[in-house]
Amino acid sequence: MIEVGIVGGTGYTGAELLRLLARHPHARVTVLTSRQEAGQRADALFPALRGFCDLRFSGPEPEALAACQAVFFATPHGVAMEMAPSLLARGVKVIDLSADFRLKDPAVYQRWYRRPHACPELLAEAVYGIPELRRHEIARARLVGNPGCYPTAVLLGLLPLLEAEAVEVDGLIADCKSGVSGAGRELKLGSMYGEVAENFQAYALGGHRHQAELEQEIVALTGGRGGLVFIPHLLPMFRGMQATIYARLTRIDLDLQALYERRYRGEPFVDVLPAAAVPDTRSVRASNVCRLAVHRPAGGAMAVVLSVIDNLVKGAAGQALQNFNLMFGLDERAGLDTPPLAP
Amino acid sequence: MIEVGIVGGTGYTGAELLRLLARHPHARVTVLTSRQEAGQRADALFPALRGFCDLRFSGPEPEALAACQAVFFATPHGVAMEMAPSLLARGVKVIDLSADFRLKDPAVYQRWYRRPHACPELLAEAVYGIPELRRHEIARARLVGNPGCYPTAVLLGLLPLLEAEAVEVDGLIADCKSGVSGAGRELKLGSMYGEVAENFQAYALGGHRHQAELEQEIVALTGGRGGLVFIPHLLPMFRGMQATIYARLTRIDLDLQALYERRYRGEPFVDVLPAAAVPDTRSVRASNVCRLAVHRPAGGAMAVVLSVIDNLVKGAAGQALQNFNLMFGLDERAGLDTPPLAP
Amino acid sequence: MIEVGIVGGTGYTGAELLRLLARHPHARVTVLTSRQEAGQRADALFPALRGFCDLRFSGPEPEALAACQAVFFATPHGVAMEMAPSLLARGVKVIDLSADFRLKDPAVYQRWYRRPHACPELLAEAVYGIPELRRHEIARARLVGNPGCYPTAVLLGLLPLLEAEAVEVDGLIADCKSGVSGAGRELKLGSMYGEVAENFQAYALGGHRHQAELEQEIVALTGGRGGLVFIPHLLPMFRGMQATIYARLTRIDLDLQALYERRYRGEPFVDVLPAAAVPDTRSVRASNVCRLAVHRPAGGAMAVVLSVIDNLVKGAAGQALQNFNLMFGLDERAGLDTPPLAP
Amino acid sequence: MIEVGIVGGTGYTGAELLRLLARHPHARVTVLTSRQEAGQRADALFPALRGFCDLRFSGPEPEALAACQAVFFATPHGVAMEMAPSLLARGVKVIDLSADFRLKDPAVYQRWYRRPHACPELLAEAVYGIPELRRHEIARARLVGNPGCYPTAVLLGLLPLLEAEAVEVDGLIADCKSGVSGAGRELKLGSMYGEVAENFQAYALGGHRHQAELEQEIVALTGGRGGLVFIPHLLPMFRGMQATIYARLTRIDLDLQALYERRYRGEPFVDVLPAAAVPDTRSVRASNVCRLAVHRPAGGAMAVVLSVIDNLVKGAAGQALQNFNLMFGLDERAGLDTPPLAP
Repeated sequence: MIEVGIVGGTGYTGAELLRLLARHPHARVTVLTSRQEAGQRADALFPALRGFCDLRFSGPEPEALAACQAVFFATPHGVAMEMAPSLLARGVKVIDLSADFRLKDPAVYQRWYRRPHACPELLAEAVYGIPELRRHEIARARLVGNPGCYPTAVLLGLLPLLEAEAVEVDGLIADCKSGVSGAGRELKLGSMYGEVAENFQAYALGGHRHQAELEQEIVALTGGRGGLVFIPHLLPMFRGMQATIYARLTRIDLDLQALYERRYRGEPFVDVLPAAAVPDTRSVRASNVCRLAVHRPAGGAMAVVLSVIDNLVKGAAGQALQNFNLMFGLDERAGLDTPPLAP
Repeated sequence: MIEVGIVGGTGYTGAELLRLLARHPHARVTVLTSRQEAGQRADALFPALRGFCDLRFSGPEPEALAACQAVFFATPHGVAMEMAPSLLARGVKVIDLSADFRLKDPAVYQRWYRRPHACPELLAEAVYGIPELRRHEIARARLVGNPGCYPTAVLLGLLPLLEAEAVEVDGLIADCKSGVSGAGRELKLGSMYGEVAENFQAYALGGHRHQAELEQEIVALTGGRGGLVFIPHLLPMFRGMQATIYARLTRIDLDLQALYERRYRGEPFVDVLPAAAVPDTRSVRASNVCRLAVHRPAGGAMAVVLSVIDNLVKGAAGQALQNFNLMFGLDERAGLDTPPLAP
Repeated sequence: MIEVGIVGGTGYTGAELLRLLARHPHARVTVLTSRQEAGQRADALFPALRGFCDLRFSGPEPEALAACQAVFFATPHGVAMEMAPSLLARGVKVIDLSADFRLKDPAVYQRWYRRPHACPELLAEAVYGIPELRRHEIARARLVGNPGCYPTAVLLGLLPLLEAEAVEVDGLIADCKSGVSGAGRELKLGSMYGEVAENFQAYALGGHRHQAELEQEIVALTGGRGGLVFIPHLLPMFRGMQATIYARLTRIDLDLQALYERRYRGEPFVDVLPAAAVPDTRSVRASNVCRLAVHRPAGGAMAVVLSVIDNLVKGAAGQALQNFNLMFGLDERAGLDTPPLAP
Repeated sequence: MIEVGIVGGTGYTGAELLRLLARHPHARVTVLTSRQEAGQRADALFPALRGFCDLRFSGPEPEALAACQAVFFATPHGVAMEMAPSLLARGVKVIDLSADFRLKDPAVYQRWYRRPHACPELLAEAVYGIPELRRHEIARARLVGNPGCYPTAVLLGLLPLLEAEAVEVDGLIADCKSGVSGAGRELKLGSMYGEVAENFQAYALGGHRHQAELEQEIVALTGGRGGLVFIPHLLPMFRGMQATIYARLTRIDLDLQALYERRYRGEPFVDVLPAAAVPDTRSVRASNVCRLAVHRPAGGAMAVVLSVIDNLVKGAAGQALQNFNLMFGLDERAGLDTPPLAP
């Protein structure tokens, strides 16, 4: 069994890692840290884990973490970049679910996250961990920056069109809708039941941090500038996310359905729906699958791509585990093979 | 008191008319029809009305309806066009909440609603009832086609930009999200709790009937063709709707905030939020208000308009009552002056 | 217009008072206090009030409050008892929505609220404000302790049985279920969407503070001891509460339906449903009505009473307004005459 | 692999069986029937199953079912009793999730289900399948009547008290609350989102069919009469159920916590929480676990037991699979070993 540590196990993504790893055939969580809950049993905080996890939270003990073969960071931004260098130096592989290792340019990091990066020298090495885009790099990596939930949904939806150079990159629109679990488990007025239930609204119109990741990856794919209009909205639900992507086609002759099916043939976690179908978020609930549909309304010049994921799984803990499996040469699906829960 | 009839009082819009009319200072419901529930008290079906409404449903009795001064149709498509002509002939004003009198072209009606129109001669006379667009025509009308919920939200959001000729009409995008009450109270698998709650999806990718209304009105406003991409989505909630509208600006110099404030100054039911604000659907719950915000992400060439309404009120029964008030020379706000219920 | 002040206007009950008073024909809010939000407009915090309330929050200014004819306290426990004495001394009527003036015995207050009472000399004078029980006392009162939400639902459900001496007082059971708005608008993990939605649980098994009020009133009504088993549960919804009350009948001959109808005949805000009917919480949403049904399963010795209210209205702000109306000799229904919002 | 058939695979319990069996190490679904959807792929109806199930629905073909080693009935009441005899005669083991084989007395069946029983001669043989009560009988059975969801939650909560003869059997109260999935996937007004969400109510006050099962089992356990007051309520959520059980103690000296822990020691699917803890329904979501807590409010004479299950799993498909495992000598946990999904 591969021994793994989780730093920051009290948030929703930390709990999700515990849930998924509880059934992983080749990995075992041996260290689980939380400053705030140190000494407390994990299953006291998350009673659903009773019988599946008998760990206690510990403080962030460098020695215990260094004894792991892999460490996941499910922490607020800024923690992983402080702790990762010494872990890497001691041979521990690191998968960071925060934003610390997603952006290549430390200046961009500083602009969006309002602090200087603590180890800019690692940014070039870190792999932006979308397996469907960089499977081989991930397999060789010792440091993976696990992508944000919105970028995962948007990029998986856009990849075939961008790679085929079939759309105008300037003017791409991603109208995204996310369940509230994306805001995490920390106390915020905006996450309270009374504010979320039976309500809908856009947010972050002034700029969402995931914009930076998205533009970085679009530029990397197209060579052009990443002029994406990205508008996130908050759904009155917990898990699940949809990106509705609008792209003006430059090649009207393309069979979009065939393009998508070809691009994702053999991918274990991307499911291209049959022509004319529409995905729903519950069909991927609690699973690592991204389901996609591509449409061309009224046969016009606009492609509309619908991309759904569970933001806590393919958008966070599940993709992190998929990356972990790749980094350790395991079956990419290990621990990720249960059906979605719907309804 | 003006005596009014409601044909089809068992759906959500019928119930909403009863709720709103219960407090109208100058109108009184005297006839309430439903074939299915004839003989039943309305407050047995809708216990919330106990103490506010002691009517019983009757069958559709032409004489009783003809004795009213106004009749609202809250029926499935196809009923109003059969009954309206004789009511009009006897001097009754008609407000139709179905689609029968929204479209000017009977061929378009037939294409989308799959039946020939029963009284095409009335289509020219019928006023498409958005008071913010046609207040004076409505005031003189005897027949109003009350707009669909999506068109109401989208058109109120687009009007200032279209009237100012500030955007490319071709390629307009309306990414719309609606609570499930828009699907009505009839039994459908897709309206069941188990299918709606904690779920999100697009629908009607092959073409939604409201597309026809929207294009008709955009063409009327711009003279051009109405090449709108309109994608509706179903929200896991009951009331409320948002249109997120994307429009490429042709005039980059415009102060969009000022444009919107100017356009809607004095409107009792359109509220332009301060710059940088974002509306939420609950802030209009149970009220006839449409709240709007206009943004230009990253100062770019794309205007993003957020338009929220309660689909059952401004998107149906409330707007119908607003039209009724206009048609009878009443204060436009009569019966519509209670604060929204939030949360 | 009667000028009223609200101390603590940023919680859900404060907002509800603003919503209800916005349409009160004889009262006008002139002072609205909040230490935290002083200077801020109320409609910036609660956009639903845009157009209905142009007040700003102020600090708790004794002079401004003393200039009001009535002051509502929608504050955490402990505030009203500090401020009420001087307001009363200056002729201001006080309606306290917190628990400070509900309990007659300062020792009981101290036991449950863990602080000594600041003005025990006022406790005898304060009226426990259930109009259906003490209408005349309330009408003459200058200080009303507005009851808790659970006690309101339970007592209205029990009154007819207790007054008729028809049940065993020892062993009464109130199995209560409340929407999360009862926990208020302050940040708590237990009020977050992710903790509340699609979940159900009991809480406060060790003793809920409303137990004290309930026992006080049951003792007052029966002369016996108040041995009530009271188990509250949290519902995955925002507004609404049901008490399911189990009482062993000592008189098997009674016509319970007639008993309830007789007891509440003429009450504007208590609605006894027809025999065999079952109330639902939405049928009282946003309204001051309590709906009741009384059953005897299988014709046995156990009476089961179902009592539903909107915990923010009849369980808080609405009942406070009903008390206010009584204290000022107004129609008891003033400002409380709109139909419930369902669905 | 054991080949199993599912009759009636289009409801929520049928879909749940497919979800659970998709990962069962020793069973494989080979026949899946539905008159209505014959010919249709299961994963077209339930897209969550894409990649996990490539079966098509067939008509109810006796030969195909007879070739299975076990058949699950997830059908409306009345189907299993018509088909079971011939399957049993051909050596197929039958697990019926409907009520056809729960009641021992055909007259009781007829009274509650309003039809004569089709094979009363099998009722004595059929085992009422609560493994925690009849593990050995189930292991030897060829016909199991899988219990209703409410009886499962209530009986697991009551067993220790009844077996210890520690409570008055007459006057037991089960105040039960269930998510709407218990009403199934068929179209009903009462299951629509607009009727369920943000609402709460009791139902079946005139008598719920599960009363019969409950009384049968209580009588069997106590020898007395089963005078249970059972009041079901509908929760605004999909999965999950709680029984809050009130029982007057006849033995005041008992350590209830120890009693429960002892009774369920070693049970893989019953989890007695630590003293003073309270279960929530999400902590068992999608899992076969029943979590229990036992309290004595204010140290009084009333025991209060809180029992939570996922009504679709331990209350239906999961318990059926647990019974299947026992009937085939497999590890009782096979296919049921994934952690609950919370939140």
